[in-house]
Amino acid sequence: MHGTMQDWPLLVWKLIDHAALYHGDREVVALTCEGEEVRSNWRTIHGRARQVAAALRTLGVQPGERVATLAWNTHRHVESWYGISGMGAVAHTINPRLFDDQIVYIANHAEDRVLFFDLTFVPMIERLAPRLTTIEHFVLLTDRAHMPETALNLLCYEELIAAESAGDPWTVLDEFAPAGLCYTSGTTGNPKGVQYSHRSNVLHAMAAAMTDTFRMSAQTSVFPVVPMYHANAWSIPYVAALTGAKLVMAGPNFDAPTIQRMIVKEGVDLALAVPTVWLGLLQHIEKHGGGLGRLDRTAIGGSAVPRALIEQFADLHGVTVLQLWGMTEMSPLGTVGTPCSTVAALPLDRQIDYRTKQGRATFGVEMKIVGDDGLELPRDGRAFGRLLVRGPWIVGSYFKGDGGQVTDAEGWFDTGDVATLDPGGYMQIVDRSKDVIKSGGEWISSIDLENAAVGAPGVAEAAVIGVPHPKWDERPLLLVRAKDGASVTKESVLAHLDGKIAKWWLPDDVLVVADLPHTATGKLLKTALREQYKDYRLPTA
Amino acid sequence: MHGTMQDWPLLVWKLIDHAALYHGDREVVALTCEGEEVRSNWRTIHGRARQVAAALRTLGVQPGERVATLAWNTHRHVESWYGISGMGAVAHTINPRLFDDQIVYIANHAEDRVLFFDLTFVPMIERLAPRLTTIEHFVLLTDRAHMPETALNLLCYEELIAAESAGDPWTVLDEFAPAGLCYTSGTTGNPKGVQYSHRSNVLHAMAAAMTDTFRMSAQTSVFPVVPMYHANAWSIPYVAALTGAKLVMAGPNFDAPTIQRMIVKEGVDLALAVPTVWLGLLQHIEKHGGGLGRLDRTAIGGSAVPRALIEQFADLHGVTVLQLWGMTEMSPLGTVGTPCSTVAALPLDRQIDYRTKQGRATFGVEMKIVGDDGLELPRDGRAFGRLLVRGPWIVGSYFKGDGGQVTDAEGWFDTGDVATLDPGGYMQIVDRSKDVIKSGGEWISSIDLENAAVGAPGVAEAAVIGVPHPKWDERPLLLVRAKDGASVTKESVLAHLDGKIAKWWLPDDVLVVADLPHTATGKLLKTALREQYKDYRLPTA
Repeated sequence: MHGTMQDWPLLVWKLIDHAALYHGDREVVALTCEGEEVRSNWRTIHGRARQVAAALRTLGVQPGERVATLAWNTHRHVESWYGISGMGAVAHTINPRLFDDQIVYIANHAEDRVLFFDLTFVPMIERLAPRLTTIEHFVLLTDRAHMPETALNLLCYEELIAAESAGDPWTVLDEFAPAGLCYTSGTTGNPKGVQYSHRSNVLHAMAAAMTDTFRMSAQTSVFPVVPMYHANAWSIPYVAALTGAKLVMAGPNFDAPTIQRMIVKEGVDLALAVPTVWLGLLQHIEKHGGGLGRLDRTAIGGSAVPRALIEQFADLHGVTVLQLWGMTEMSPLGTVGTPCSTVAALPLDRQIDYRTKQGRATFGVEMKIVGDDGLELPRDGRAFGRLLVRGPWIVGSYFKGDGGQVTDAEGWFDTGDVATLDPGGYMQIVDRSKDVIKSGGEWISSIDLENAAVGAPGVAEAAVIGVPHPKWDERPLLLVRAKDGASVTKESVLAHLDGKIAKWWLPDDVLVVADLPHTATGKLLKTALREQYKDYRLPTA
Repeated sequence: MHGTMQDWPLLVWKLIDHAALYHGDREVVALTCEGEEVRSNWRTIHGRARQVAAALRTLGVQPGERVATLAWNTHRHVESWYGISGMGAVAHTINPRLFDDQIVYIANHAEDRVLFFDLTFVPMIERLAPRLTTIEHFVLLTDRAHMPETALNLLCYEELIAAESAGDPWTVLDEFAPAGLCYTSGTTGNPKGVQYSHRSNVLHAMAAAMTDTFRMSAQTSVFPVVPMYHANAWSIPYVAALTGAKLVMAGPNFDAPTIQRMIVKEGVDLALAVPTVWLGLLQHIEKHGGGLGRLDRTAIGGSAVPRALIEQFADLHGVTVLQLWGMTEMSPLGTVGTPCSTVAALPLDRQIDYRTKQGRATFGVEMKIVGDDGLELPRDGRAFGRLLVRGPWIVGSYFKGDGGQVTDAEGWFDTGDVATLDPGGYMQIVDRSKDVIKSGGEWISSIDLENAAVGAPGVAEAAVIGVPHPKWDERPLLLVRAKDGASVTKESVLAHLDGKIAKWWLPDDVLVVADLPHTATGKLLKTALREQYKDYRLPTA
């Protein structure tokens, strides 16, 4: 038996309809790769998104088919995004920082029919076009004046949409219909696609707008430095439309002077980026001054936020850091570091202890930690286990069924992280599941060990991996690289660790090595280390 | 084709699960009709709600069946509410202020199987029980010590739930399953039931939590003075669980000293009530002093908020009034008077002009105004027409199909109000559809005319109705009651109105009468006036 309320499907175009009607004059500001500053508003964005939808219909795109973007954060990208989903197609945001082969794989796997891309990527597309087997139309996100000389057969975005009416209605769909597609860049195997639905995007936007998440309103000026190809720019272009916030975008610019200038000039009070952007910005301000205008809070995700960064924002600029944790498979929001009432009552220094954690789950994200036996572990802030999540904006399966079944019988998705949960609900990532060392049924965090080892005199970098052990299954092996000219020995490192960690966590061996392997983005390549040391015999074994 | 995100139904028990896990220590404080102050928290409320669910299963209640409450706002009412919906039954909140016949009609029409009620209502239930033909179990919301002498066969709430475990899981349902039932008290005909679904309640709570709606967070202390039998206390018990707010309730107490004491003592920053409660409170404070503690904003709905009330809150207490507009059929939220960025930048006096309007639609509520021909009218702040609404928490049909089809072919529900919409999206109620005067195809607001007439010297009260006119279809007839001893004439009133309203709005006649008819709640009874004057011949006709 059903209730008798209206069946009003949650569709992403309703977000921009709302923005156009109730926040039509609210600004959308963008720097473009043409070097222009474009000042628009939600009413205009809405009309142009309608024209994009009409243009795609003219090109023969059908609901459910994929249309890709390879673009920076600009008004044109936002219009394309809403236009694609609004006519029922799936907005596939491609990450331009991937390798050529990955981009080709992704576009072909998604069977993208049209590609909208920025001027920046003309050379890339000239190179890749012959291998992009499903794309029929290449649309350059620019006007006639900026169309380049190229052998490519290009459509000009501004001409394409100018030929269309803004008057045709959006496509009405089931709310479970797909709206967006984003591939994860897994370190092993082919990238896998996460296909967001209209429902998941709208619910996620509502949760992200909340007071204890991004606290966005019609008075907010929001600046997503995080690009739209990273899990929908953490959904900011949706949340801004939903709340009527002013939306500020910097196009291809990620440099500190531009970020600072936009924050001050556009009265930004909420800005979002990965830690490296903020480290660069604070260093720049330290050197050149200038302040951060009305900036009130920064939401930071993508990797753990160093405490020093949180402190510097608070001390020098009165800015609150909201740590976020999530993943492409979670649309992306899982937790936010907004204080609960108990934490908010603590002195700032103790509050910052909590800001260094990954935060608390918003309503709509269920979390639990489990041991190797799959049984739930206590939420005591000490026990750590595999972090499982469940909710309406969390992946149920990958696009085209890649990777098979990814949720368990009760619908839980394994994040691949190992974490603690404290009684107040704060989650802290301890390690990646594949990196944690499983010693006699108990787990040792490789990250905690590495952090402790990096404090040892003369140590420049540390890596911990588990190596096979006849009695304990696995025991930790610590590899350290010494600073230039420093004298580091097994004994000096172990002496430093003594008392700082539990006795049974002490590495069974310490090797001083000349170099450690890294990924292209600078992360430790533990897969290579594990392969290299898989037959290593620990001295006590 | 479906997206591949998880199918996680929106169920109201997920709200209280979230509260128990992430805000378990957050307080729920209630005054009871036993005269006690009970301090609980979300963890405890969750456990006891689970026990209510188990008790209902023991009593043989099946999912989809109705369980009624006749109770004030207390922890026990909140527990019952979540317990009923949580085991799949429908929580039917009955308004105890209705007439006996209406309560009997409603309970029988709903086929309520169990009734949870407060001590206050023992005499009422003793009187009505023989006529309540479907209720099998009467549960008194109290403990053994407070059980009264009565001929009724009563279950004691505290004993009932003490016998049950909190460990059994909630009932998993389709999100469109009914969760709650509330009858409208229509002025004509039998009351009609609005049956909320789990989905509509959860989506409504998410929208109500937003920064530009109630701005509720884990740091909020919220005090719904509005009772749960009025459209779910504007959903506050849901929003408080969703956000982890502290929930303050005053049971049967609506007197100014208690309201003031609770606001100050419990650090309330958001309180919600109808205008009369606030008028009483401000008068009390004027006389006795004492302030309003941390109170930051009041949400006021139920009837139009007088400007003087808004000003007094702002001037004397620095409290912002958020005007709300909605109806039982809308769960109840339609609009909220939160300022947009343009309005927020105005001087306070001009801001208050906007606070006197009903506010702007939150995302999830579509609105339009239409003329008699059903065509949409411009959003220019001047044109007014019938206000139609559409959205996921708006009624699609009444319970058991009463009243037949209530939405049009495009799904719009007619609110029965006549309103303007301005370019910024602010809605202002002009009149009720049935009261507006239709003169030559143009509409005249009876309310605007009455407000103007009440300002005339010596006029105590005014009523305007439309009477038949051979040329213009209808023309306004103004009826006024004079203040004691005042001399009021047709000419003196018309002279006052001259220049204050459009010429063609001027009433065709003014009658000075000894008395005007009212409803039980003090509203003008225009149906009686229209009946009385239906053959009245206007002098110019």
